[in-house]
Amino acid sequence: MDGTGLARRVVEETAHRAAEITRRTGVRPCLATVLVGEDPASVTYVRMKRARCAKAGIESRQISLPATTTTAELTETLRSLSLDAGVHGILLQHPAGPHIDERAAFEAIAPEKDVDGVTISSFGAMSFGLPGFTSCTPGGIMRLLDEYDVELAGRHAVVVGRSAILGKPAGMLLLARDATVTYCHSRTRDLSAIVREADVVVAAVGRPRLINGEDIKPGAVVIDAGYNPGNVGDVDFDTARTRARLITPVPGGVGPMTIAVLLAQTVDAASRQLGTAGENTG
Amino acid sequence: MDGTGLARRVVEETAHRAAEITRRTGVRPCLATVLVGEDPASVTYVRMKRARCAKAGIESRQISLPATTTTAELTETLRSLSLDAGVHGILLQHPAGPHIDERAAFEAIAPEKDVDGVTISSFGAMSFGLPGFTSCTPGGIMRLLDEYDVELAGRHAVVVGRSAILGKPAGMLLLARDATVTYCHSRTRDLSAIVREADVVVAAVGRPRLINGEDIKPGAVVIDAGYNPGNVGDVDFDTARTRARLITPVPGGVGPMTIAVLLAQTVDAASRQLGTAGENTG
Repeated sequence: MDGTGLARRVVEETAHRAAEITRRTGVRPCLATVLVGEDPASVTYVRMKRARCAKAGIESRQISLPATTTTAELTETLRSLSLDAGVHGILLQHPAGPHIDERAAFEAIAPEKDVDGVTISSFGAMSFGLPGFTSCTPGGIMRLLDEYDVELAGRHAVVVGRSAILGKPAGMLLLARDATVTYCHSRTRDLSAIVREADVVVAAVGRPRLINGEDIKPGAVVIDAGYNPGNVGDVDFDTARTRARLITPVPGGVGPMTIAVLLAQTVDAASRQLGTAGENTG
Repeated sequence: MDGTGLARRVVEETAHRAAEITRRTGVRPCLATVLVGEDPASVTYVRMKRARCAKAGIESRQISLPATTTTAELTETLRSLSLDAGVHGILLQHPAGPHIDERAAFEAIAPEKDVDGVTISSFGAMSFGLPGFTSCTPGGIMRLLDEYDVELAGRHAVVVGRSAILGKPAGMLLLARDATVTYCHSRTRDLSAIVREADVVVAAVGRPRLINGEDIKPGAVVIDAGYNPGNVGDVDFDTARTRARLITPVPGGVGPMTIAVLLAQTVDAASRQLGTAGENTG
């Protein structure tokens, strides 16, 4: 499954919508990116996201906070961005640091600006089929599945991983689409036996080649959201590809979709906040 | 599994805590029960809940609204109860009626008074292991499992049903306790095959004897949260009991636990709001 190609098309459409909003209102959609500390991977991710914003005609505003920032200071920053009419979307780069109560920080983001889909309100929307933003990676996975017309109703989807921004919401989105959903994780016994029953496998745990290729049911669809050093996913790709009907590569599968959804949701947020919704969004 | 007996002990302990709060503060814990229309089953449920409150030393305040009440009027009522310092817990009897946006109504309940565990905030707390109230029936199920020392970590729990106040939160609570969790529902193919793999079955769908007794794995634990006419559960009890290690009867299993958790959470809420927390709650 070609995440790079689909992401490019999503970003192109997003750029078109951003330009239309700017033309009508004179305002460019704006994403605030908040970074705590100087973790090199996080710095790189934020730089990449901002570069993609710029290419799509989305303004970004970088807020860099020192590693010594407290939870109270961080939530204060996020609250003031939530109230700032010039900011349409807010991204707090994860991880914010071991001393930060990340959940408290996420909850300081106004739901209507939660374009990264990290608040409990967004999780509730994903879980109960309400309007709202999806977590970006799960949202990207759903767009990939739809792009390839993967039937979900009644199929058995196995989600390996249960993080708040990846595994849990991915399972809820699949359940909302009428899949039978199994959550597996580090405490699961006989992961192989469960994966062997899966019509759709979503690997979202961050452990290199945790999923054996031999366990993939012939004809299954495999989504590898793992990101491990050396461009290795959570799935043993070489073997899995010989059995799967569809599979995402690493890199070039889920990864590009994550940023594409972030940009698309930033433009959705701007459109709603600037009162152009219903004209530019689908 | 004896839900009636455990519920009685929970209510006794709750009554003791309620009396202690009243002794210290001069205030009785108070639950507001909101009923829209005159559906006979709902009227009966609310009356039963209020009678149990009275026996436990919990005040209850009944708000009966006509069937013609709009969503806006209902949310206004719930918002004003949320602000009323004399009310510690709020219950909106489900179903509120076909013309009501029940989700909007639930969200008008302040999270700290959501003793029925129906808000998105409470669902997030259950899903992410944060402090907060559980939905009453799933919370009652967890207390039953704990009472009987049912090991959950690494076990396969199959939840049949995915409603917002029963199936979904039950699965999230089981996942938070390290079970491998499968959600099944009306669109699931080959439910029998999945149930046969379950160490713990939670039936929460409201279809009489949907779960075949023969599908229960020998030694499994069966929780039947179904409530169907004629005191019939979602599980074929007579056959299932011959295979299960533990099973809840209908009635006398999950049912009594639901009200017990409602009362316990009302007293928790009162304790926090009246500033006696940390002394009376565990």
